[in-house]
Amino acid sequence: MQLLPGFRDLFPDDCARRNYILSRWRNVALRYGFVEYDGPMLESTELYRKKSGGELVGQLFDFVDKGGRDVALRPEMTPTLARMVIARGRDFRKPLKWFSVSQFFRYEKQQRGRLREFYQLNCDIIGEPSLAADAEVVALVIDALREFGLTAEDFVVRISDRDAWISFLKAKGIDAETKGGQFLQIIDKLERDSPESTGLKLKEFGLTTDEVREFIAHPGAHFERFDQLAADLGARGMEGFYKLDPAIVRGLAYYTGLVFEVFDRNGKLRALAGGGRYDNLLRDMSDGAVNMPALGFGMGDVVLGELIAETPRALESRDRWHQSAAEIYVVIAKEERRNDALRSIQQMREKGFRVDYPLSPAKVGKQFQTAEHLGARLAVLFGDEWPEVKIKTLATREEISIPHTELMEVLRRLSK
Amino acid sequence: MQLLPGFRDLFPDDCARRNYILSRWRNVALRYGFVEYDGPMLESTELYRKKSGGELVGQLFDFVDKGGRDVALRPEMTPTLARMVIARGRDFRKPLKWFSVSQFFRYEKQQRGRLREFYQLNCDIIGEPSLAADAEVVALVIDALREFGLTAEDFVVRISDRDAWISFLKAKGIDAETKGGQFLQIIDKLERDSPESTGLKLKEFGLTTDEVREFIAHPGAHFERFDQLAADLGARGMEGFYKLDPAIVRGLAYYTGLVFEVFDRNGKLRALAGGGRYDNLLRDMSDGAVNMPALGFGMGDVVLGELIAETPRALESRDRWHQSAAEIYVVIAKEERRNDALRSIQQMREKGFRVDYPLSPAKVGKQFQTAEHLGARLAVLFGDEWPEVKIKTLATREEISIPHTELMEVLRRLSK
Repeated sequence: MQLLPGFRDLFPDDCARRNYILSRWRNVALRYGFVEYDGPMLESTELYRKKSGGELVGQLFDFVDKGGRDVALRPEMTPTLARMVIARGRDFRKPLKWFSVSQFFRYEKQQRGRLREFYQLNCDIIGEPSLAADAEVVALVIDALREFGLTAEDFVVRISDRDAWISFLKAKGIDAETKGGQFLQIIDKLERDSPESTGLKLKEFGLTTDEVREFIAHPGAHFERFDQLAADLGARGMEGFYKLDPAIVRGLAYYTGLVFEVFDRNGKLRALAGGGRYDNLLRDMSDGAVNMPALGFGMGDVVLGELIAETPRALESRDRWHQSAAEIYVVIAKEERRNDALRSIQQMREKGFRVDYPLSPAKVGKQFQTAEHLGARLAVLFGDEWPEVKIKTLATREEISIPHTELMEVLRRLSK
Repeated sequence: MQLLPGFRDLFPDDCARRNYILSRWRNVALRYGFVEYDGPMLESTELYRKKSGGELVGQLFDFVDKGGRDVALRPEMTPTLARMVIARGRDFRKPLKWFSVSQFFRYEKQQRGRLREFYQLNCDIIGEPSLAADAEVVALVIDALREFGLTAEDFVVRISDRDAWISFLKAKGIDAETKGGQFLQIIDKLERDSPESTGLKLKEFGLTTDEVREFIAHPGAHFERFDQLAADLGARGMEGFYKLDPAIVRGLAYYTGLVFEVFDRNGKLRALAGGGRYDNLLRDMSDGAVNMPALGFGMGDVVLGELIAETPRALESRDRWHQSAAEIYVVIAKEERRNDALRSIQQMREKGFRVDYPLSPAKVGKQFQTAEHLGARLAVLFGDEWPEVKIKTLATREEISIPHTELMEVLRRLSK
C-alpha cells in the first residue's frame, strides 16, 4: 500500500515545515488587514471548465460522484472565491480584503517544484478599482516572502500590464477583442517555446518576433500604470524588489490589467507566486448581475519550500521557529509517585506548558534520555524526595529541590 | 454554479469559527506532548477497502484518476497513519505520540451533525501497550473538549472494552475468533435498531436480547481495565467526565481492547468523538512485518460546532478569542499625505500590527466609520497637522497629536 505519486506524507518534521509556511502566510496577510475565508475542496467541474481555461482543465482530478454529479478537486482558488462573492458579496463592506490558505490538486507530470497536491496562499481585493489596490497586493506578495527571511537578493516581482499588450495589438491594426487571448498565450510561452514555433504563431497575426521583442525591450509609454505603482511601492521602501517585465502576461484566461509573477533571482526555480487584475470575472460568471473590479495573487508552498531550503538566511529563520516536542518532561523515579505526578502534569498542562512523561515504568537514566531527545528544557523528578520534587534545567544540569506544593509557582518563574 | 450538497463555503465569520476549533485542537494536543503529522488527501482505494470496513467503504468519494489508479478522498485518518508508521515508524523513538488536524470526505446523507466534508483531530499513541496510554488518550479527549469551555455538565465519555464482550461470547460457548466481529456490529447498532431486528440477529448466535441487556446493566468483573483507567483519570481530577458503558463497541473493524465514544449530556447530538485500541492493525496491514500496539481517537468539527453553539459558556469562550479585522486604521485626511502614511503603515506592519487604510480617497468621517466597522482599536490620522499625526483611541474618542517620527514609539507604549 503505497503513497500515490505526487502526494506527500508529512512526518512530524515535514509537517512542522508545512506549518511554518502556513502560519507565516496567515501572519502576514492578517497584518495587511486581510480576513481569512475558505471554500470546499470539491466543486462542480463546470466551475473550472468555464473559468480557469488553459492547461488547468486538462489537469483536473475530476470524476462523477455517487449522486451523478461532475465534480473536481479544486485546482485553484479564484473560481471558488468568485462563486462565493457572487452569492453573498453584497453582505460585506467593500473593498473585500480576503485571504485563504488552502490545499489544491492538479494532475501534472511530477517534476521539481510540482506536486499533485500543494498549498497556496491566495490574497484578493474585491470592489476596488484604484491602482492603490494593485500596489497593496504587490506589497503583500513581497512581504509574504520577506516573512521567511528572503530578501531582494533572493527574489524579484516581474510586473506587466495586459492592457499595454492590447494597445500594442491595436497600434498594429489587430482586433484585440477577438484575438487578444490567443496572442497573450503566445507571449506567455515566449520563454519556453522555440523561436521557430513562436515565429510561426506570430505570423498568423501578421507579426514578427522582432516586433514583439522590440516592444518588450522598449515598452515605453504603454506602461504608465507601472510608474504609479512604483511610487506607492517606493513609499513603502520596496524599491529593488520588483521590475517592469512586459514578457509576463499570465496563462489563465481571466486576467485583465496589471499582472505579475515572482521568481527566484537565480532563475532556477518555477514561479513562486503570480497574480493580477481580473476585473471582468465576476461580471462574466454572474451574467452581469455582480460587477466588481478584483485582483489578487496565489503563492504555492512547493517552490517556496525549495527556495527556503537553498537560502541560508531563510533556513536560520525557519530553525528559530521550530518548537520542541515538549518543554517539560516529568521523570517518574518511583512508580508509587505516578498518581502524584499525574496530578502535577494535569496542572502544568492547564497552565499551558507542553508536558510529556513515561507511560511505562523506565529507568531514571532512560527517562532523562527521552527528555533530551524530546528537546525538553526542564525535567521534574518525582521520587524518593517526595513530598519534595526536583527540577532540573537540562542544558545546564542545574538542579533544585522544592516542596511539590510550590511546583507551579516555581515553574512560572523559571519560564519567564 | 452552486456549492455541492454537504460542502461548506467558509465566509470570514465561518472561517474564524473553523480556525478557532482547529487552533484550540492543536494547542491541547501540543500540551500533551503530541507532535503533528499529516498525510495525503487522496489515497489508493485499496487502503480503505482492506482496513476501514463497515459503512465507510460504501461512503467513499472514490474514482479512477487520469493514470488509471483507483483512488479515494480520505474518509478517516487511521489507515493513512498505519501506512506511514509501517513505512517509517522505525525511525522514531517509541512511543509515538502523534496528532493531526485534517479534512475528510464521506458521501453520506446530509443531516444534522453530518456533512460530506469535515475536519477531525486525530491523536494516536503507537508502540505503548500499557493502560497508562489509554488513560492519556482519554484524558486528552476530555481536555480537547474542556478547551472550548465545555464541562462535565455538557459531555460524557462512554468507555467500554471489546475484550469484555469477547469473554462474554466465550462464556456462552460462542467462537469469538470467527463470529466476534459480526456480533460487535449488532451491539454497535443496539441503540439505533428496533428490538425485533436486534432479537432476530442475536438469535443466529443462540443469544437473547435479555442476556445482552443483562450484561450491559451488570458488566461486573469483565471490565477490570476500567478500574485501572479510573484511578489514572482520578489523579488528574477527571472524575465525572466519563462512565463505563458496555454498549459502546465502535463500528470500525480494527478496534481491540478499550473503546470509547463521547456524547453531549443531553443525548441530542451524534458522537463528538470516538476511539480506542487497535493493537493488531499494524501487524495485519504489514503482513506481520511491523507489530506495535496502538490506540487513538478522532474528534470531528461539525457536532462539536453544534454543541458550542448551544452552550452559552462555550460561546463566550469563542467570542473572547475572536479577532478584529484590523487593530489600527490609518485615516488619510489629505491625499498629499498618502505616501507618508504608506511609509508608516509599512513600519507598523513590520512591527506586527494589523493595519488597514483607505485604498481610494474618502471623506474623513467615512474613514472613521470603516475603522469602527473593522473593529480597529486605534486610528492614526495623516492630514493638516503634518509633520504631526493624530492618534485616536476609538472606544474612548481620546485623541493625541504627536510628531510622526515618534509614532512607532507611542504605538508600542499604547499597545502594552
